Amino acid sequence: MRILSGIQPSGRPHLGNYFGALRQYITLQKGNEPFYFIASYHALTAVQEPALLREYTMGVALDLLALGLDPKQAALFAQQDVPEVTELTWILSCVTPMGLLERAVSYKDKVAQGLTPNHGLFAYPVLQAADILIYLSELVPVGQDQKQHLEMTRDIAGKFNQQFGEVFVIPKPYILESTAVVPGVDGRKMSKSYGNEIGIFEEGNALKKRVMSIVTDSAPVEAPKDPHQSTPFLLLSLLASAEEKAEWESRYEAGGMGYGEVKKRLLQLVEEYFAPFRQRRHELEKDTDYVMDVLKDGGMRARAVAQQVMHRVREATGLPTSY
Amino acid sequence: MRILSGIQPSGRPHLGNYFGALRQYITLQKGNEPFYFIASYHALTAVQEPALLREYTMGVALDLLALGLDPKQAALFAQQDVPEVTELTWILSCVTPMGLLERAVSYKDKVAQGLTPNHGLFAYPVLQAADILIYLSELVPVGQDQKQHLEMTRDIAGKFNQQFGEVFVIPKPYILESTAVVPGVDGRKMSKSYGNEIGIFEEGNALKKRVMSIVTDSAPVEAPKDPHQSTPFLLLSLLASAEEKAEWESRYEAGGMGYGEVKKRLLQLVEEYFAPFRQRRHELEKDTDYVMDVLKDGGMRARAVAQQVMHRVREATGLPTSY
Repeated sequence: MRILSGIQPSGRPHLGNYFGALRQYITLQKGNEPFYFIASYHALTAVQEPALLREYTMGVALDLLALGLDPKQAALFAQQDVPEVTELTWILSCVTPMGLLERAVSYKDKVAQGLTPNHGLFAYPVLQAADILIYLSELVPVGQDQKQHLEMTRDIAGKFNQQFGEVFVIPKPYILESTAVVPGVDGRKMSKSYGNEIGIFEEGNALKKRVMSIVTDSAPVEAPKDPHQSTPFLLLSLLASAEEKAEWESRYEAGGMGYGEVKKRLLQLVEEYFAPFRQRRHELEKDTDYVMDVLKDGGMRARAVAQQVMHRVREATGLPTSY
Repeated sequence: MRILSGIQPSGRPHLGNYFGALRQYITLQKGNEPFYFIASYHALTAVQEPALLREYTMGVALDLLALGLDPKQAALFAQQDVPEVTELTWILSCVTPMGLLERAVSYKDKVAQGLTPNHGLFAYPVLQAADILIYLSELVPVGQDQKQHLEMTRDIAGKFNQQFGEVFVIPKPYILESTAVVPGVDGRKMSKSYGNEIGIFEEGNALKKRVMSIVTDSAPVEAPKDPHQSTPFLLLSLLASAEEKAEWESRYEAGGMGYGEVKKRLLQLVEEYFAPFRQRRHELEKDTDYVMDVLKDGGMRARAVAQQVMHRVREATGLPTSY
């Protein structure tokens, strides 16, 4: 199956990214034909410092390779290496009703957050549709909260096919396993926009500070506590074995356990779990030529597919090239 | 000077197009370096029948060559042969405030006309900006009524340069000589959307019917008439010599002249004036290979410039290619 997903380069991945998506991307590569792209055109709607955008873009490649992405199995590439998606974006814009974009929740959210909206932010779902459709993707991994995006892509593809003939595959969502919620250090959903994240590649004192700063209630040590309302426990659950999880559950409920104790164990688990990935990332950082080769190769594989599809799109719409 | 103009493929050109723009495009080619493109991506916002879009696109090339465009002087090309403009459109979208597009008069007009707005119609000015900026165009011929479009391009270019460094030339308007108004057969401004046009390549009975159908008032033959309120006279003024124009003016004012007479003379003038162009168009229609070669060559010249500029744009924004 052709699986398509874009990862927006916006800095270091955190536990929420990992358990919510990245880990599953790696699992999905087996037996499938995934195209994973670094969504740099999308990032430009928000990241407008060139050095930062470059760094973040390279960062995503390092992250995914460190986490086990197999570049023979999955094509990993930077969005700008297949500029055809922007051409398709224009063409799809001509069959995308304004009303569809005006109803997009993520745009409304960003405006509500006080961002000065640029047109890229508004047109975001059309570029997303182009990314999915240009590779004739069959499956798109999405979280429960991103289902609207894929619905929009399906709508746009349907309108195009209706007007110009059956060119596009209508993609299906692959709903990512929602690993309960991954709370951030302040108890809200872990998210860079809240600044409450724990980075999976963080280490040493920085990581320690971060874990120890997790907000807990002020219940005294001796009091029984509800593990399922407690951020350290919820995070620990993601990493610990079933046995260990059950043990901590009992200790919470019995009372006599301080939050410091569970945080310390959480820190240990984070360090252990991600140690091999961190190690691999350090190695890759020293070999950026290899990373660039992976991107180059992935980009060429993806572009070959995109160019074939665009040839059909141009014929279908009456926009053939003169040469 | 690098001059840039796009001609939207929407069917046969009429007297209004010719005197308002096309004639001046031909004059402007001398001593300048014009890039004239057939705005097929723009047309897709409205023309969604592939055969028609192809026909119209080829039609514009035939029209311009027939009217005297010199392909050695001016690069004539189809917009889709420089797909880089769509990439620049996306990048510019990220520095284009939504408010700027929401204020665009032409979008508001189209919606008011009852068109179901697609996103392409809304994003139209960004594509227009990309077309102008990607060739580092210095002069853009515009009618008085299109000044807002160029203002938007200047705004967008300024925002990009401010954010990412001085990449773009800020283009200046070249205000086209407004040859008074060119009225259509019903007296309103000549325009395809009113269906009141007289095509410059029409001939024979079709042309005759069209000219004879010009609406006039019901003043009797013997009454003195105001030439400057009379469509046949206004159209005749565009084509007749100063002497002849003065003569008809006197005859209108003296009375004793019927509108049939002036229409007949107008028909003769249209036939004579455009005869060599019609002749040339017929010849070119038999040699579409030549026309395709012109487009191919023009496209390659334009694309070479666009690719250089895009290289700088990608460096400036942090979107370099991996290969």
